[in-house]
Amino acid sequence: MEPDFPITRIKGGVGAPQGFLTSAISCGIKNPAVERLDLALIHSELPCTSAGTFTTNRVKAAPVKMTQAHIRKGDLRTIIANSGNANACTGMQGIHDSRAMADGVAELLGLKRTEVGVCSTGVIGLPMPMMRISPRLGELVGALEPGRGPDVARAIMTSDTRPKELAISFDLGGTRVRLGGCVKGAGMICPSMSTMLCFITTDAAIPRESLRLAVLEAVEESFNRITIDGDTSTNDTVLVLANGASGIKPVRRNGPRCRQFRKALRWLMLELAKAVVRDGERVTKFVHVKVRGARTYLDAKKVAEAVCKSALVKASWNGGDPNWGRVLHAVGYSRAAIREELIDILYNGTPACVGGLQAETPMDKLRDIAALPEFEIEIRLNQGSAEYDMYSSDFSPEYIDFNRSEYAYWKQARKDGLV
Amino acid sequence: MEPDFPITRIKGGVGAPQGFLTSAISCGIKNPAVERLDLALIHSELPCTSAGTFTTNRVKAAPVKMTQAHIRKGDLRTIIANSGNANACTGMQGIHDSRAMADGVAELLGLKRTEVGVCSTGVIGLPMPMMRISPRLGELVGALEPGRGPDVARAIMTSDTRPKELAISFDLGGTRVRLGGCVKGAGMICPSMSTMLCFITTDAAIPRESLRLAVLEAVEESFNRITIDGDTSTNDTVLVLANGASGIKPVRRNGPRCRQFRKALRWLMLELAKAVVRDGERVTKFVHVKVRGARTYLDAKKVAEAVCKSALVKASWNGGDPNWGRVLHAVGYSRAAIREELIDILYNGTPACVGGLQAETPMDKLRDIAALPEFEIEIRLNQGSAEYDMYSSDFSPEYIDFNRSEYAYWKQARKDGLV
Repeated sequence: MEPDFPITRIKGGVGAPQGFLTSAISCGIKNPAVERLDLALIHSELPCTSAGTFTTNRVKAAPVKMTQAHIRKGDLRTIIANSGNANACTGMQGIHDSRAMADGVAELLGLKRTEVGVCSTGVIGLPMPMMRISPRLGELVGALEPGRGPDVARAIMTSDTRPKELAISFDLGGTRVRLGGCVKGAGMICPSMSTMLCFITTDAAIPRESLRLAVLEAVEESFNRITIDGDTSTNDTVLVLANGASGIKPVRRNGPRCRQFRKALRWLMLELAKAVVRDGERVTKFVHVKVRGARTYLDAKKVAEAVCKSALVKASWNGGDPNWGRVLHAVGYSRAAIREELIDILYNGTPACVGGLQAETPMDKLRDIAALPEFEIEIRLNQGSAEYDMYSSDFSPEYIDFNRSEYAYWKQARKDGLV
Repeated sequence: MEPDFPITRIKGGVGAPQGFLTSAISCGIKNPAVERLDLALIHSELPCTSAGTFTTNRVKAAPVKMTQAHIRKGDLRTIIANSGNANACTGMQGIHDSRAMADGVAELLGLKRTEVGVCSTGVIGLPMPMMRISPRLGELVGALEPGRGPDVARAIMTSDTRPKELAISFDLGGTRVRLGGCVKGAGMICPSMSTMLCFITTDAAIPRESLRLAVLEAVEESFNRITIDGDTSTNDTVLVLANGASGIKPVRRNGPRCRQFRKALRWLMLELAKAVVRDGERVTKFVHVKVRGARTYLDAKKVAEAVCKSALVKASWNGGDPNWGRVLHAVGYSRAAIREELIDILYNGTPACVGGLQAETPMDKLRDIAALPEFEIEIRLNQGSAEYDMYSSDFSPEYIDFNRSEYAYWKQARKDGLV
C-alpha cells in the first residue's frame, strides 16, 4: 500500500537524492575471469546523519563488527561495499582487511575512518582477495559522480538475478525531498535481518535519533518479515544516510514531517524487501501470508513464521498445490495458542478451510489460485484481533541444486594463494 | 553403541516377543487400484502395561486425541494402525471414525474400547475411507497369528522405501526376554516427535510407572533427536506394550533389572530412529552432529538443532561439500551463547575449522569425507562440558519434487465420494 500522500517514482536508486555521489568498478572479486561490477561506493558531499541495523547472527562478518562500531561512535558519510566475498569467519585478518578498505577510502576522501561503513557479501570462510581491491580504491573514488546509483545496485549482486532499486520524491512540508534505495538478496534470507545488504539515501534532513527510530521501525515491518530459506546470514546490513541536501530544515522529532518521512521510509523498505523475495534463489512463487485474529501479536508472528518457513508448505507452493492441510499443520506446531476448530484458511479470499475442515470451495478453483506466480494466504485464527503479515517464497528443487557446493570458490582461493 | 550387556538380534519385529499376535491386510486405503498392506493389528494375548508419547503439534489427528485419552485411563492391549490416510483435520467425523475402528476391534476381541490404540498415517485433511475399513475388521482380527511382525512394519509404510524393524532378546535377571519394534517415517520429521509411528512390544513385565518413565527417557534420546525436514506432524505416536509373557516376575522400580531394561529400550529406539533418518524422503546422506563443550545442555541442543535444520547446511551435505562456513553460520544464529573464535569443527575427527578459522587440513581430504553416505560433524564450542547429539539428513532436490503436490489424493477422495 502506497503512503497516504502523493509520491513520484524517480530514477537513480541511491544516487537519486541530491548531494550523493556513487561509483562502481569491476575488480574480479566475484570471478577474476569475468568482468562484473563488484566494488561500489556511495558518498555524500555533505555530512550526514545515519542509522543502521545489523544481523542478529552471533557469528558476524568482520565488516559488520567494524561498521557497527563506527555507527555507534558517530555518523557515516560514505559506504564501500563489495560482492563475491563476505569476509566472514576470517578472524583478525578479516578485521584488518575491512579496516584497510575503510582507511583507503577515508584517506582518499579526507574523512575519518569512522565515517566510512564497509559491507561485504558473498562466500564465507575465505580471506578477502585484497590484492585485487587495495590497488583499485583510487580508481573507485575517482569515478564518483552523480547518477550512478544503478551501478551500485548491480555491484552488490551475488546470486541475485536482477538489480533491485527504487527511488521516490515527495513534498515534505513544502520542500521536495528524495529517498532512494537499493538491496541485494538472495539466499540465507530469514527474519531478524535477511542475508542482504540494503543502502538508503535521502536528501531530507533527519536528526540522528529520529532517523534511528525510523529505521528500526521500518526494518521491523519489512526486512524482518521476509524469508526465503530460513537461514540468517553473517552479513546482513541496512544503512541509511540522510544529508539534508534538499535544503529542507531538519524535521522536528515526532512532528508531522517526521511522521511523513517515516511512512515513506517504511513503504520504500517494504517494497525493497518484497523485491528480495521475488528475486530469491530459484524462486517461482511470491506468497503473502496474512495472519488475522490472533490472541496476541507474538502468537500471530509465530504462526506466520512457522507457515512461511515450513519446507513442506513451501514445497506445495512450488507444486501449485492449495494444500491447506500442510498450512494448518504448520500453524499447529508454531507454539502459538491456537484452536484447530476455529481456524479458517483462505487463498486470495476464497475459503479452503473453514473451522479446521475442508471448505466447500471446489478444489480446482483453489488450484487455479495456487498456480498464480503471486497469491495471498489468509489464516484467520478467530481468537482475538492481533495480526501479522509476512512474505515468503516457494522452495524449489533448483534452490538445492544451486546451493549444493561452493567448492569452486575454494579452488579459486587456492589459485590466488589465499588458502 | 550397543548396551553394555549381551544382546541377540532375533527376527520378527513387534511379533517377536512371546504372547503377541499380529496381522496385516490390504484394504485399498493407500490406493484402491494397487494391492498394498495398509491396515495392521498388534494384539497381546495377556493384559499389558503400556506407555505412549504423542506429537506436540496442537493440531492433533483424531486417533492421536483418542489414543491419548485411552492411555490416560488405563493400559492398551491392542493397536490398530492404518497407512494412506492420517485422519487429521477431519473434525468430529474423524473422531467418530477412529472410535469406529477401536469399537470394531474391541468387540471382535472382547475388550473395552479403551484397551485399543488407533494410529493413522498418510494424507491429512481428507475423511477416512471407512467403507474400505469397517467391512474388513473381522478379516483383520481373524488373521491374527504369531510371527507376522514384518507385515505390520510393511503395512504402516507411507513414503518409506523399506520396512524398518528390529528385535532383540537378552537375559534379564535370569529370564530370557524379548523386545521388538517397528517404525515408519519418512517426511514431516522433526524433533519433538517426528512424523512417525513406532510400536514396541516386550514380553518383560514392567510396571506401568516404570514403563512410562523408560519410554519418556528413550524417546527424548532417540526420536526427539532426529530431523529430516523440520516439520512436526499431526500424528506422531510411539506406543509400547509390555505383557510379561516371558514368565519373568515384574521388575522392581529403579532396580538393576529396570535399569537394564531401560538401556535396552533406549538402544532399540535409537536404532529405529536412525533407521527413519536413513530412509527419509529422498535422502542421500546420514549425518551425526555432535555438539561438545557447550556451557549448558540447552545451548548444545540449540546449536545441534540449528545446524541439523539449516536448509543451506543440508543442501551442502547433498552436494558432498565440506562447507564448515555454513555450519558455523548456523551455530551463530542458533541463539546459543557461543564465541566464534573458540569454535572447532571436525568432519569424522578431521579438523575443518579451528578457532573459527579454516583449518590447515587440505580441502580435498575433507571433501572425501563429505562424499561418504554417512559421516559425523563434531562442533566443539570449547566453553563448557555440555553435549548433545543429533541425527540428520541432507535435503535433496528430489525431496521437493516428491512433495510438490498431494492433489492426486484429493482426486481419489472425490472419486470415492468423500469430498
